[in-house]
Amino acid sequence: MKILLEILKQSGVSGDESITSDFLLQYIDQRKNNWNVLPIIYSGEDFHDCILLKFGKPRTAVFAHMDTIGFMVRYGNQLISVGGPEIIPGTNLEGSDSMGEVKCKLVGTEHDISHDFPRGIDPGTRLSFSQNIRIDDEFIQAAYLDNRLGLYSALKLCETISDGWVVFSTYEEHGGGSMPFLLKFIQETSPIKQALIADITWITEGVQFHNGVVISIRDKYIPRKKFIDKIIKLAKESGIPFQLEVEEYGGSDGREVQFSPYAIDWCFIGAAEDNVHTPDEKVSLVDLEAMLNIYPYLMDRL
Amino acid sequence: MKILLEILKQSGVSGDESITSDFLLQYIDQRKNNWNVLPIIYSGEDFHDCILLKFGKPRTAVFAHMDTIGFMVRYGNQLISVGGPEIIPGTNLEGSDSMGEVKCKLVGTEHDISHDFPRGIDPGTRLSFSQNIRIDDEFIQAAYLDNRLGLYSALKLCETISDGWVVFSTYEEHGGGSMPFLLKFIQETSPIKQALIADITWITEGVQFHNGVVISIRDKYIPRKKFIDKIIKLAKESGIPFQLEVEEYGGSDGREVQFSPYAIDWCFIGAAEDNVHTPDEKVSLVDLEAMLNIYPYLMDRL
Amino acid sequence: MKILLEILKQSGVSGDESITSDFLLQYIDQRKNNWNVLPIIYSGEDFHDCILLKFGKPRTAVFAHMDTIGFMVRYGNQLISVGGPEIIPGTNLEGSDSMGEVKCKLVGTEHDISHDFPRGIDPGTRLSFSQNIRIDDEFIQAAYLDNRLGLYSALKLCETISDGWVVFSTYEEHGGGSMPFLLKFIQETSPIKQALIADITWITEGVQFHNGVVISIRDKYIPRKKFIDKIIKLAKESGIPFQLEVEEYGGSDGREVQFSPYAIDWCFIGAAEDNVHTPDEKVSLVDLEAMLNIYPYLMDRL
Repeated sequence: MKILLEILKQSGVSGDESITSDFLLQYIDQRKNNWNVLPIIYSGEDFHDCILLKFGKPRTAVFAHMDTIGFMVRYGNQLISVGGPEIIPGTNLEGSDSMGEVKCKLVGTEHDISHDFPRGIDPGTRLSFSQNIRIDDEFIQAAYLDNRLGLYSALKLCETISDGWVVFSTYEEHGGGSMPFLLKFIQETSPIKQALIADITWITEGVQFHNGVVISIRDKYIPRKKFIDKIIKLAKESGIPFQLEVEEYGGSDGREVQFSPYAIDWCFIGAAEDNVHTPDEKVSLVDLEAMLNIYPYLMDRL
Repeated sequence: MKILLEILKQSGVSGDESITSDFLLQYIDQRKNNWNVLPIIYSGEDFHDCILLKFGKPRTAVFAHMDTIGFMVRYGNQLISVGGPEIIPGTNLEGSDSMGEVKCKLVGTEHDISHDFPRGIDPGTRLSFSQNIRIDDEFIQAAYLDNRLGLYSALKLCETISDGWVVFSTYEEHGGGSMPFLLKFIQETSPIKQALIADITWITEGVQFHNGVVISIRDKYIPRKKFIDKIIKLAKESGIPFQLEVEEYGGSDGREVQFSPYAIDWCFIGAAEDNVHTPDEKVSLVDLEAMLNIYPYLMDRL
Repeated sequence: MKILLEILKQSGVSGDESITSDFLLQYIDQRKNNWNVLPIIYSGEDFHDCILLKFGKPRTAVFAHMDTIGFMVRYGNQLISVGGPEIIPGTNLEGSDSMGEVKCKLVGTEHDISHDFPRGIDPGTRLSFSQNIRIDDEFIQAAYLDNRLGLYSALKLCETISDGWVVFSTYEEHGGGSMPFLLKFIQETSPIKQALIADITWITEGVQFHNGVVISIRDKYIPRKKFIDKIIKLAKESGIPFQLEVEEYGGSDGREVQFSPYAIDWCFIGAAEDNVHTPDEKVSLVDLEAMLNIYPYLMDRL
C-alpha cells in the first residue's frame, strides 16, 4: 500500500497532470522487470501526459484517470471549479504560483467561491485539497481516492496481467478529451473490443460499504447489456464480493468509449466512496480489496 | 403492413437491441432475394447489434434506429428512465428478469418513479410499455411508432433501392453512440456524402396530421442549408405531400452525422406523431404513406 | 482595414456560410500571389463551405469561424435563435426569402421571439442583425465582430506566414461540427500538434479594454497547462500587450480540438468585446492591433 500513499500525495488537477504522470512513469520503470510480462510503454509529448502500457496480445483495455478535481484562481481572490468539487467553507487548499507556495482556506458558497490567502495568487493557478490520509481497520479516508485508487488498482494489475492494455488517462474530471486519441492509438496499434473503467463511484441507497466492488449496469450512459451480463456472470464465478449499481447520473471515461468511432464494449468497475469530491472521501478496505482482486480475474477471462 | 405489426411487438430498450436486431436479420434473410438489388449484409459482434445493408454503389445512407425508450429497475421498486418516456401513472409495463415474466404498472411522478409489481425485480431489468396497436381509416396508434415506423420505412425501401446504404442503428434514444462506428465503417467501405434520418418527429403548431411527411429544416441542430434546399426542391418535384419543420429542440442520429469527422450532409425525414414517447403514439396513415414514398424517390435522385 | 469592412457586410448565419466562403475564396485568389508563401487551397463541396490554406510545412493551425449568430423563422411570425443572440426588442433584422428582401424588427422576449414583417416569411429563413459599422479613435463597433475580426486576423496572417494551416470553419456558433472533419483532413494531409483559435471573447471584471489581446487560460474547457505556459512565455517575450482570461463558461472551436481523436494542444487568442452577440459589439482598436500582431509572432515561434 506504500505506493498508494505516495500517489495520494501527488497533485494533478485536470490539465496539469505532468507531476502524476512523471511519478507513474518512474514507478513503472522501477518495477516493470518484476512483472509477469514486460509491457511496451507509450508516453511523452505525442500522448500529452497520458501513459499506455501494452502487455502481450490485448483483448481488453483498463482505463484509470490520473487527474483530480480542484480549483483555479480567477481574478482577485475568486476561485472557479475544475471538475465538480464540493464547496465546503474552511476547506484547506494548496498550490503554488510564480511567487511561491500557497496554503489557504476556501471561502464562500457554490456560486461565489474565493480564497483567504493574504496576497493575490496568479490567475490560472490550480489549487488542490490539502491531503490528510486516514486508515483504520475498516476504511481508508483521504482526498482524491477518486481516482488515486483507480491508479493503484491499475498498477497492481500490472504485476500479474498477461494480455491487455493498462492506460492512464487525463482530463476525465473536467469533461474528458484524452480518451479519443488514446482509443485511436490503441485501435491502430493493437485493437480491443472491451474496455473496463477503473474508477471510484458513490455510496447510495443501493450501494453500501463492505458489500464488494461495484459493477455498474448504468450511470448517465448505458453500456450494452450483453457485455454487462458477461461481466456479472464472471464476477459470480469468481467468488469476489461485488454489488450492482443502477444510477441515472454520473459519468466516466466509459462515456468516451461509448461515443468513440469503435465498437468497443465498456463497463465501469470500482469501489464506492462516501463524501464524494471532498477532502474526506471514504472507501471500505474490503471493497478496495475486491476491486484489486477482480481486475486480474476479469482480464484473464474476458 | 404485416411486418410493421410484427416489429411493433419486439422489445428493444436502448442497450438491449439484440431481439429486434435478430428479428430484422431474419426478415432480411427471408426477403432479400426478392429485392431489386441483393445487398451485402454487415452484422454481428463487430457491429454490436447494428445492421448495415449495402446496395449497389451508395451515394447516400438511410439511418433508422432500432431502440426504444423505456425504464430500468433501480433499487427496491424504483424505476429510472431510458431515453425520455412520458411519466403517466398507471401505464402498463412489461419485461422479464431472472425470476420470470414481469407485468406491472408505473407509479409516481417524474422525479420519483416506481412500479407496483408484488415482488422485487432484478436491478438493471428493462421494462417497456405494454403494446396496444390500434389502426383505423385515418391513424395508426401504438407504443414505439418512434421508431418502428422508421424501421418499416427502411425495410420497404430495401425492396426497390438500387444504390445506397440502409443502416439500423442502436442507442439513439439514450444519447447515441453507435453512429460514430457505423459512419467510420461506411466511409472506409463505400463512402457517402449524404445521410437521411428515417425517424418520427412531433406534431406541433406548424406540423399537423395529414399534411404529409416532415422534412426538418432544423431541430436543436442545424443541417447545411444547401442540402436542405436540394431535398425540398426534389420533394416539390415528386408530388409527394410534405411539410417543413423548424424546431428549436429535439435531436436524432443526424446530430452524430453533424459531429462526425466526415463532411456528410444530413436531413431528418419522417412522419409526425402526437402523444410522443407514450404508449399511445399516433401517426396519420397519409403521412406514413408519404414517408414510405419519399425515401425511394429521394434515394434514386440524390 | 478595407477588407474588414467588406467582411462585416457579408451575412453567414450558421449552416448558410456559402456567401462568406465565396467572398473569402475570391479575396484569397486575388491576394495570394502577393503573400510571402503561396498556400495550397482546399475548398469546395468535399469541405462543405470550409476553407483550408496550407502554407509551407505546418506545425500549428489557426482556426477562425466564418459563421455568425442570427435567427431562423419558425411558423407564423415566430423566430428562434441560431447560436445565442441577445434578444433586444426593436433590433433591426435582415434577410431574404422566396418572395424577396426582408427588413423587419425583433419583437418579444427571450422565450417568445417574433418579427414584425407585414407579410409571412418562409419558414427556415435566416435573419441577421442589420449592420452598422462605427469606428472612432479608440473603438470599432458593429454586429458580428465575433468573428469577423477573427477572419480578418487570419487573412492578415496569410500575408507573412511561412509555415502553418490557416483554416476557416463553419457552424461554430451553433454547436460546431465542421472541426472534426477539418482536423481529420489536416492530420491526414500535413499533421500538427498545436492549434490557435482566432476568435473574440468577452469583456469581464478581469478582461478590460485597451489591455491587449486575450490569451485564455480556460473557458468552460481547460487546455493543457504546459501549452498555455509556452504561449504566455512567448507573449511576454514579444512585447505585444496581452491579458490573461480565466473563465468558467463559454466555448470555441477549441472545444472540438480538445475532444478530437488527436493529441493537439490548443489555445484561444483574441480581442475582447463588450455588448456580446448584439448589433453593437465593441472592440478596442489597441486590442485588435495586438491580436493582429501576436498571430504572426506566435506562428513563427511555436
